[in-house]
Amino acid sequence: MSKRPLIFITNDDSFHAKGIRLLIDIMRKLGDVIVVAPTVQRSGQSHAITVNEPLRYHKVHQEDGYCAYVCNGTPVDCVKIAFNILMKDRKPDLLVSGINHGSNASINTIYSGTMAAVFEGCSEGIPSIGYSIDCHSADVDFSFSENIIENLAVDVLENGLDSGVCLNVNFPNSPIKGIKVCHQAKAYWNEDFIGRKDPMGGDYYWLTGVYNCLDESPDADYNVLEKGYASITPMQVDFTAYKVIDKYSDRFKRLYNE
Amino acid sequence: MSKRPLIFITNDDSFHAKGIRLLIDIMRKLGDVIVVAPTVQRSGQSHAITVNEPLRYHKVHQEDGYCAYVCNGTPVDCVKIAFNILMKDRKPDLLVSGINHGSNASINTIYSGTMAAVFEGCSEGIPSIGYSIDCHSADVDFSFSENIIENLAVDVLENGLDSGVCLNVNFPNSPIKGIKVCHQAKAYWNEDFIGRKDPMGGDYYWLTGVYNCLDESPDADYNVLEKGYASITPMQVDFTAYKVIDKYSDRFKRLYNE
Repeated sequence: MSKRPLIFITNDDSFHAKGIRLLIDIMRKLGDVIVVAPTVQRSGQSHAITVNEPLRYHKVHQEDGYCAYVCNGTPVDCVKIAFNILMKDRKPDLLVSGINHGSNASINTIYSGTMAAVFEGCSEGIPSIGYSIDCHSADVDFSFSENIIENLAVDVLENGLDSGVCLNVNFPNSPIKGIKVCHQAKAYWNEDFIGRKDPMGGDYYWLTGVYNCLDESPDADYNVLEKGYASITPMQVDFTAYKVIDKYSDRFKRLYNE
Repeated sequence: MSKRPLIFITNDDSFHAKGIRLLIDIMRKLGDVIVVAPTVQRSGQSHAITVNEPLRYHKVHQEDGYCAYVCNGTPVDCVKIAFNILMKDRKPDLLVSGINHGSNASINTIYSGTMAAVFEGCSEGIPSIGYSIDCHSADVDFSFSENIIENLAVDVLENGLDSGVCLNVNFPNSPIKGIKVCHQAKAYWNEDFIGRKDPMGGDYYWLTGVYNCLDESPDADYNVLEKGYASITPMQVDFTAYKVIDKYSDRFKRLYNE
């Protein structure tokens, strides 16, 4: 087994996306690389796992220090297949996901398959980073972000991350003014469904929406990105609202009558 | 328009599950009810949204104070369809999701379609509660939990929840010893893929796993549930790991060379 770091790569835009191809090129400079990526686009899949149908994967590339597979599942399925079948004997030193075509700052985090893969790696104890750029174009120019992607991966390979913490990194689609460590901006999507009729006269709907930022803080990831900085949001998989635990303990105990 | 509270109900086990049928019966005592539930089982769908294919829904039941629809999408799609098409003129006073067949305590929260619907409601500013029972049987006996479900819904209708906070409520599959307000237990799933061959000789895999609790705290939801208590975990949609923001601000600023 090689002594170079072992780096696992996935995404949600599929193995054919420009973002993951660049991420592979960058990471191959730093270590041996194993890729398991969705066969087709799986954007918006969040932390979905495939429980009602079987999973399949197959190898699409192999050369010295680099092996790639595609999988019919979600991004989280790809991580599970990788960690529990393909990398059973040696867990990776780093998981990187992306580079996503489209921002995963703010509320987008919870819809993102890219970030779900990062959370999955994090919950398995692997230092994990998600990279995204604020542009959905399939041919987006990643050149402004390449150095930061590499420098950050080198840093995390050398120094690790705190237990239970992973990184959500977003780049503006423009020359980058600097890096800011942020919190997740409070926001919601205001959906606007487009209604159409199929050839049989049946109604169907396309989901679209408008982003609404509720967070004016200059330290919110969305706002940092809007100002032309790369945002690094340290994240954890703990939904607990600790601030209300004591209050709700008092409030709800009367609901149960012994 | 009725002055009774308006209650929205969804789940991830589909409209045909016993859990949602009971939830509908309980909530109809408290207000007018609109249901939009997945047409088929959508467990493990997390916060997935349907972006690559169109959504459809149709009405399956209507009577005074109660209207139900099924939708081909995920639980989060059901919430979005409901709030943005069916309830465009009057948002609900309460969203309840479940009763899920299977615990959504601990790390299960992030995989759960039931809880994703709750997070979606919460991010839209609606008081939202997810109910689950620690048993996957389609015919599970919910009788021990009925009173708590109703009492909690009445409390939240009367008093609301803190802004940005929702509730993840889990019941043991046994007589209930009491209620405890908890934090989300730290844990992960140790996957065990079952590999098989299809009739053409191709490999395929079924995802299974073993739950590993890393949290010995008596206040962790998983542990509370194991001891026979109902767990109420107050939750929020903010992945930020605030405790490391200052440290990482110092650490990562040197990655960018102006």
